[in-house]
Amino acid sequence: MANLGERVLAGDIRAASRLIRNLEDGIPDTDLIMKDIFLKTGKSHVIGITGAPGAGKSTLTDELIAAFRKKDRSVGVMAVDPSSPFTGGAILGDRIRMMRHAEDKKVFVRSMASRGNMGGLSKAVGESIHVMDVLGQEVIIVETCGVGQQEVDIINHAHTVIVVLVPGMGDEVQALKAGLMEIADIFVINKADRDGAGKLYKEVLSVIEMSSRNCGGDGWTIPVLMVESVLEPHKFAASVAALGEKIEEHHQYLVANNLIEARIRNKTAAELNEALWASIMQPVLNELNAEGEFEMMVDQLMKRHIDPYTLAREIAGRYMKRSPCGDGSSADQS
Amino acid sequence: MANLGERVLAGDIRAASRLIRNLEDGIPDTDLIMKDIFLKTGKSHVIGITGAPGAGKSTLTDELIAAFRKKDRSVGVMAVDPSSPFTGGAILGDRIRMMRHAEDKKVFVRSMASRGNMGGLSKAVGESIHVMDVLGQEVIIVETCGVGQQEVDIINHAHTVIVVLVPGMGDEVQALKAGLMEIADIFVINKADRDGAGKLYKEVLSVIEMSSRNCGGDGWTIPVLMVESVLEPHKFAASVAALGEKIEEHHQYLVANNLIEARIRNKTAAELNEALWASIMQPVLNELNAEGEFEMMVDQLMKRHIDPYTLAREIAGRYMKRSPCGDGSSADQS
Repeated sequence: MANLGERVLAGDIRAASRLIRNLEDGIPDTDLIMKDIFLKTGKSHVIGITGAPGAGKSTLTDELIAAFRKKDRSVGVMAVDPSSPFTGGAILGDRIRMMRHAEDKKVFVRSMASRGNMGGLSKAVGESIHVMDVLGQEVIIVETCGVGQQEVDIINHAHTVIVVLVPGMGDEVQALKAGLMEIADIFVINKADRDGAGKLYKEVLSVIEMSSRNCGGDGWTIPVLMVESVLEPHKFAASVAALGEKIEEHHQYLVANNLIEARIRNKTAAELNEALWASIMQPVLNELNAEGEFEMMVDQLMKRHIDPYTLAREIAGRYMKRSPCGDGSSADQS
Repeated sequence: MANLGERVLAGDIRAASRLIRNLEDGIPDTDLIMKDIFLKTGKSHVIGITGAPGAGKSTLTDELIAAFRKKDRSVGVMAVDPSSPFTGGAILGDRIRMMRHAEDKKVFVRSMASRGNMGGLSKAVGESIHVMDVLGQEVIIVETCGVGQQEVDIINHAHTVIVVLVPGMGDEVQALKAGLMEIADIFVINKADRDGAGKLYKEVLSVIEMSSRNCGGDGWTIPVLMVESVLEPHKFAASVAALGEKIEEHHQYLVANNLIEARIRNKTAAELNEALWASIMQPVLNELNAEGEFEMMVDQLMKRHIDPYTLAREIAGRYMKRSPCGDGSSADQS
C-alpha cells in the first residue's frame, strides 16, 4: 500500500486514480498513504463551482479547463455533482463533449458519488484534492451541487468559490441567496441570453451590496459575470476566458492581502474535524455493527424499553476514558 | 428544565415551542427532557415533502394542512427548507398565505434553520418530530429541500416521502432521479398547467417502471399525481385533497403489509447514530475547542509539521479506552 503513495508522489497517474478510488470507497489504511502526501501539499489553487442542478456547471467547467489549458496550466477536476456528466449522471451528448480533454495529459478528471459514503464524502474530496495537488495540478476545480450543508462543506475546500445562477429558475435564486451568499467569491449568470438575465444581474448586485461581507468583509468586490449561451461558441468561450481571468485575479487578491491564510485555516480545520471523526467515531460504529450490537440496541429502542440518550451514554462510558466536560453535567444526572 | 418536559407531556404548546428552539440551538441537558419524551412517542404519521427550490413545496404543504384539517386531523409542520416561507426565506405574499392556519389550535408549525447547526440538524429535526408526536399531532409534515445527503437524512425521519417535481426545470429532474428515486413513495408533478407536464409525467412513470424498487421492492406502486396551479384554487384544492387521500392510503398499505416496522427501524437507527455522535464526538470537540487546542493543532497542520491522521490518532488515544478494531491495524504501523 505504501508503494501506492510513493508512486503518486512520483507522478504516476494510474496510482493516483487508484488512490482516489480507495479514498472514495473508504478502504482501510489509506490514511497511512495520505500522511506522507499531506506533508507535500499546498501548491494548487482550488476553485469551487456550485449552483443548482441544471445551472450548466459542467459545461462551464469543461470550457474553464480549455481556458486554463490555453495558459498552459495543468488542471484537475473533482466532480461531486449527481447531475454532472463527469459523474455519469447526464445525457450522452454531455459526456461526449467532455471527452475532448481525454487525451490531454495535463488534465486529470475524477468524479465521486455523493451517495453511500457514510459521513466521509467531504473528507474523501479534500483528500482527493491533496492527491491532485501532489500530482502537480496547478488548478483544481471542484464541481458540486449547492443546496445542502454537505455541499457547502465540500465547497469549503476551495480558495475561490464560484456560484452559478441561471435566469428563470424562480425561487431557486432565493434559496441560493440564503445558503451560498456568504461563500461566493464570484457570481456567474449562465445562459445569459435567456429572458430575465438582466433582472437577475440587478438582483444579485443588490444582494451583494446589502451583504455584510461587502461592507467590512475582506474587501474583495464580488463580481457578477455574464456567460453567454453555449449555442454561441465564440461568445461562450470569450466569456468563460474572462471568468478564468477573474478567478486568477481573485487568487492574486487573496495572496496580496494576506487573506489566503484564513481560507487555508478554514480548510485545515475542516480536515482535522474529518480526521477526528474517522479516528474516534468510525471505529466505535464499526465495532458496534460488526458484533450485531447496534441492531440489538435499535430493537430495544423500537420497543421503547430505553431511550437513545441513555444508550449513547452507556456506549460512551464503555469506549471513552472519561466523560469530557461539556456534556458532563447531564451525565451526572442520568 | 425537567419541568419543561412535563409541561410538553401535559400538552403545553408554548413549552413545546421552547423545547424545539432549545433542540435547534443545541442547549445542553435538553437530552434529559427528551429521554422521557422519547418513551411516549410513536403515534404520529410522519410525512416528508422534498424537491428542488421553487417546486412549490410550501404552497403544497399549506394546502395539505387544510386537507387534513377538513378530516379533523391535528397537523404538525417542521420546515427545514431555506426557500420555505415557514423559515422566513421567501416573499411576503407566501408568508401571509400561511397565516390562515395561525389561529387553528390543531395546527402547530415550526421551522428550523439549515445553517449553523454543527452536524446536529437531522437530530434536532427528529427530536422535534418526537415533541410534536407527544403533543398529539396525528400527522406531521417535514418539509425540506432535496439535493444533498443532509436533506436525505432529514427526509428519512418520514414514513411516507413525497417528491415534488415541476415541469420545465430541466436537469433538475435528472438530479432528483439520481438522488431521490430510492426514497419517493409518491411523486407530485406540481404546477401541472405548465408546458411539459405531460412529458414529465411520462418520464417519471418510465423511471418508476425501470426502478429496482418497483420490481421486487415493497410492492407499493409509486403513484405520480398531478397538482394543478394554485392560480386555479378549486382545482388546486381538489388535487391536493387527492394527494392527502393517497398519503393515507400509503400509510395503511405500510401497516397492512408489515412494512411500517422496517421504516421505523431505519428512523431509529439514524437516531441512535445521532445520539452516539452527541455523546462521543461532540464532547471531545467541545473540550478541544474550549482549551484552544484545536486551533493549535490547525496551526501545526498549516505549517505541515504534522499530518491530520497522526494528530487524530493521538487525540483518539487520549480519549478512548482502547483502539477499537477496524482502525487498529493502521494505528500499529503509525
